[in-house]
Amino acid sequence: MTTATLTPAQARSLFRDDYSEPTTGWAGGYTQTNLIAVPADWAYDVLLFCTRNAQACPVLDVSDPGDPTTRLARGADLRTDIPRYRIWRDGELVAERADATEAWRDDLVAFSLGCSFTFETALAAAGIPLRHVDQGRNVAMYVTNRECEPAGRLHGPLVVSMRQIPAARVDDAVRITRAMPAVHGAPVHIGDPAELGIADLARPDFGDPVKAADGDVPVFWACGVTPQAALMACRPPYAITHTPGYMFITDRRDSDYRL
Amino acid sequence: MTTATLTPAQARSLFRDDYSEPTTGWAGGYTQTNLIAVPADWAYDVLLFCTRNAQACPVLDVSDPGDPTTRLARGADLRTDIPRYRIWRDGELVAERADATEAWRDDLVAFSLGCSFTFETALAAAGIPLRHVDQGRNVAMYVTNRECEPAGRLHGPLVVSMRQIPAARVDDAVRITRAMPAVHGAPVHIGDPAELGIADLARPDFGDPVKAADGDVPVFWACGVTPQAALMACRPPYAITHTPGYMFITDRRDSDYRL
Repeated sequence: MTTATLTPAQARSLFRDDYSEPTTGWAGGYTQTNLIAVPADWAYDVLLFCTRNAQACPVLDVSDPGDPTTRLARGADLRTDIPRYRIWRDGELVAERADATEAWRDDLVAFSLGCSFTFETALAAAGIPLRHVDQGRNVAMYVTNRECEPAGRLHGPLVVSMRQIPAARVDDAVRITRAMPAVHGAPVHIGDPAELGIADLARPDFGDPVKAADGDVPVFWACGVTPQAALMACRPPYAITHTPGYMFITDRRDSDYRL
Repeated sequence: MTTATLTPAQARSLFRDDYSEPTTGWAGGYTQTNLIAVPADWAYDVLLFCTRNAQACPVLDVSDPGDPTTRLARGADLRTDIPRYRIWRDGELVAERADATEAWRDDLVAFSLGCSFTFETALAAAGIPLRHVDQGRNVAMYVTNRECEPAGRLHGPLVVSMRQIPAARVDDAVRITRAMPAVHGAPVHIGDPAELGIADLARPDFGDPVKAADGDVPVFWACGVTPQAALMACRPPYAITHTPGYMFITDRRDSDYRL
């Protein structure tokens, strides 16, 4: 058994027992999501920010205040079933935990946003190599020089995930991911990282650096970590998120989000 | 000149001068939108309802409170540039107007939702006949027996638009519209109206009855009038909407919303 063949419920059970590892390559064929939970009086700003920046922040589920369950996975608990959490106060990352039960609050509204790990199964099925998976690493993520559309009290830069793709397969990667708009869709940029204001691919802002093979081209997708950059920029009083790359694994099939 | 070759700005200018007609077939190639404007304290419920029912209510723009402009059309005014408006109090339709300036309020948040008229240009370009356009009628819309996902204080039935499509072209219509998820995407139902709880196609709940040709099959798409059914069901104190079929014509190209 590998982590790729775990069921979502098996994976969540491991994480509930405080096992903590990036989820790229886990539970192949199932949709993964980003978490951002904010106090109810910030929920409209977050939902509007996500609506206006839907490629980075595709909303797959929104909880009612205080409710840690999700329509995306029966019996799951968003406070325990993610492998690693970040706790934020006034825009500062104050703690990182394998369990968020004590940090949860009755007024938190939890947003589950689409994640690019979801389309990796489709890329792999098409024979497109996933360098970070092969190298046993988290995907590399970068803060860019592109500003998101502001919404209420929220603004911030676009965050992207990057995959090194063999030049001859870039077209296929675009075609495959374009058909999955609920999990970031087509790339936002292909090629020169400097055009996104990324100085050095070897120093990602989140996740791990990933080694390219000869002939690879860096391809950049909008990333569901974007709201975390907005938290840092706008400093709402409290928030809980996942740690980048340590995602929630839903019961939904990737194919549910393919057009 | 026909209404199909008007620019969006020309069409809006006519409507600003209180010309009032359904917009199907107008300004070919440009995206049309549904309007629902509600007091700010209902905005989260509407946005969440739209998020949870995105096929019926794809959000293309949200205004700040009181702001009658939209990112979708430069120089446009949402209070005047739609051919016909409906004013709602406590869930009752209390007036229908060619101009909503006097009905506007400083606390209204305006939601612009994708409209199926947007994909009609693509259907016509593929040689698929549009019976309602040929017959000079508004599209036919029906309240169905399918309940939307509730959100906060909002709930209500799914509303659909119906087009009679030659049986041999139904597959093409599905394929073409699936690639435009921001304007309702693929049909929600093909064939027997009774399965949607529609008793008589000749008696639509909104718009006009449309005559089928021999060999046509009724095809049903989720419709941006769905929030109006939720207004009737849930009775928020105040709202302004467009009249079904009398849409806002944006400056955005249909192709901007094609994957």
